[in-house]
Amino acid sequence: MKKFNYSIPTEIFFGKGQISVLGREIKKYGSKVLLVYGGGSIKRNGIYDSVLEILQKEQIEVCELGSVDPNPRINSVRKGVEICRENSVNFILAVGGGSSIDCAKVIAAGVSYKGDVWELVVDPRKVEDVLPIGTILTLAATGSEMDGFAVISNLETKEKLGTGHDKMKPKFSILDPTYTYTVPKNQTAAGTADIMSHVFEVYFSDTKEAFLQDRMAESILKTCIKYGKVAIENPQDYEARANLMWASSLAINGLLSYGKDTNWCIHGIEHELSAYYDITHGVGLAIITVPWFNYILNDDTLYKFVEYGVNVWDIDKNLEHYEIAKLAIEKTANFYKELNIPMSLKELNITDENFEKMAEGAVRYGNIGQIKSLNKQDVINILKKSL
Amino acid sequence: MKKFNYSIPTEIFFGKGQISVLGREIKKYGSKVLLVYGGGSIKRNGIYDSVLEILQKEQIEVCELGSVDPNPRINSVRKGVEICRENSVNFILAVGGGSSIDCAKVIAAGVSYKGDVWELVVDPRKVEDVLPIGTILTLAATGSEMDGFAVISNLETKEKLGTGHDKMKPKFSILDPTYTYTVPKNQTAAGTADIMSHVFEVYFSDTKEAFLQDRMAESILKTCIKYGKVAIENPQDYEARANLMWASSLAINGLLSYGKDTNWCIHGIEHELSAYYDITHGVGLAIITVPWFNYILNDDTLYKFVEYGVNVWDIDKNLEHYEIAKLAIEKTANFYKELNIPMSLKELNITDENFEKMAEGAVRYGNIGQIKSLNKQDVINILKKSL
Repeated sequence: MKKFNYSIPTEIFFGKGQISVLGREIKKYGSKVLLVYGGGSIKRNGIYDSVLEILQKEQIEVCELGSVDPNPRINSVRKGVEICRENSVNFILAVGGGSSIDCAKVIAAGVSYKGDVWELVVDPRKVEDVLPIGTILTLAATGSEMDGFAVISNLETKEKLGTGHDKMKPKFSILDPTYTYTVPKNQTAAGTADIMSHVFEVYFSDTKEAFLQDRMAESILKTCIKYGKVAIENPQDYEARANLMWASSLAINGLLSYGKDTNWCIHGIEHELSAYYDITHGVGLAIITVPWFNYILNDDTLYKFVEYGVNVWDIDKNLEHYEIAKLAIEKTANFYKELNIPMSLKELNITDENFEKMAEGAVRYGNIGQIKSLNKQDVINILKKSL
Repeated sequence: MKKFNYSIPTEIFFGKGQISVLGREIKKYGSKVLLVYGGGSIKRNGIYDSVLEILQKEQIEVCELGSVDPNPRINSVRKGVEICRENSVNFILAVGGGSSIDCAKVIAAGVSYKGDVWELVVDPRKVEDVLPIGTILTLAATGSEMDGFAVISNLETKEKLGTGHDKMKPKFSILDPTYTYTVPKNQTAAGTADIMSHVFEVYFSDTKEAFLQDRMAESILKTCIKYGKVAIENPQDYEARANLMWASSLAINGLLSYGKDTNWCIHGIEHELSAYYDITHGVGLAIITVPWFNYILNDDTLYKFVEYGVNVWDIDKNLEHYEIAKLAIEKTANFYKELNIPMSLKELNITDENFEKMAEGAVRYGNIGQIKSLNKQDVINILKKSL
């Protein structure tokens, strides 16, 4: 196990009705709130009204930044920063999924920053003071509710970059599984694929001695496999929604990666895809994952696929090792198919015309991938297999 | 999954050499330290000298409370409180295992408390201000390094009581697996049994819908089973010591119990045993566990034993369910035996003479146990089976 510094300070209020703590929790930190949210689903399902009612009752002033896009744009962040400065906002409340939360985090870091806020995305070491952030989660997917990361897109430069800072971790997040009852089937599927991808990025590492972390990673994968389909078939199944929601937070808050060498790759490649084509993040991840698995399977990585197959997919451990590995990959692909996730880039009308530039972007800071290092040509090869 | 409020603010510095952060971390909170430690092993293995050297270099003043007993006594706590008051101590640093850390926590809570500090053990709601606490862990067992609990013994009243408060959670804990290299074999075994018992207490709950938590619980059990024997056979196996150490913290910091109904029982019974006989906590737990398993196994609890047997012990899921359950219990007993843990109270020279009073003590606040509720007679029956 590698050395690590563990810090997960975000408080979680989990369960039906936990929104009742909202006023009390905000008041620990601030009195003027910027409410950040997305396309309006929270208006349709009543969460928006509940939040405003509580804030009014608690005499907390509210400004709003709505219409945050699914792949949140730096322009939304700039707008949020402006609103905060003009209104002396001292608390940011994101209501939504990862996009609203990511946007809120960078706004919170940008308010006191003197340069253009895109610089904080490019180089998070420039982050200094960050306004306190709270979140109300409405989609189990990115895990942004419990970590310090954010992914922001810049349409002008065709960049979608991840950034992160300890100070950007939310003070609290409210996780009410019933708030995900109205998530459409395709978004539930993409969210489940996103959670699984966060696990894959750290599970497929060559740090062999982090036994405990790897068993916990498998716990989260098994949770996604058990409940992904249930939640799609019966959107109001509390048990399924609850398990997926908690899995989304634990998959990426550090619990699985502390103590391991990691170097994410699938997210890097997907960010290029959605920077160019604005596709759903989880769908992009799922499409690349199976070709990636096939590409990196070799004598050196075989043991990890065997672990994955036996422990997660319950494949007979007495089978020949390559057979186990291939079965595990096949079962992964079949699972995505059962969730009705498109399984090729063609289905999203993506051709190979930008693969060269995408691959360059994906490795702009060096090779990616941990258990098998990927260079530009590797990325192109994986993208071609994903067509 | 039940509603829960998650808060695990303790920062962990994990790995060889992490003691280098000690000065920096203490200085965030205080400048006058009470150093709390046990019987002197930290003097023999050099940790004591390392700590003092760092504190001196950082010009942090130090008072000392050594010789804290394995089942820490309220008298040690009283003494610590006195030293803190006389010397205006503003930070408590525990170096050791659960005993030193538990003692440190109650001292930290006691300094500003006007009444006798035993009252805080009996009723933790009386806890108000708590001095900041840091720990340097030297034994993987109680998990006290990452939670708000403490267990304190009162020899006069023959009581050993658990107490706990959010404010008693350490600010930081330094977990260097090499600090456990000199732990004797029997203590390594008892520590492993202690970790497993913390998992059993929350795993054997009838909250069926906390799938994710139960899979994580199994991860920790598998870690103990894999590495317990390795650490005993080769005390300097870093991988084994690291996995056990991290398992000890995660077993009881809330990760496994948040979202489940729990009502601990084995710890309650063991506290009675060691209040009367001052035995090693982990040994007492292991001795009672197998009779407890046999006692609570019935048609209602069978499913949980099947889960345990198949997922933790890799027992063929196609066997008859009672066969799986009995095999799982047998494998648990065999595992303890392989660790050379005494498997009966007789081996500790304990007779049934105080069982009546012990059972009364164990259920003083009501029945204990979650998946099967235990009353006074049940406790007596389990103790008799443990003879």
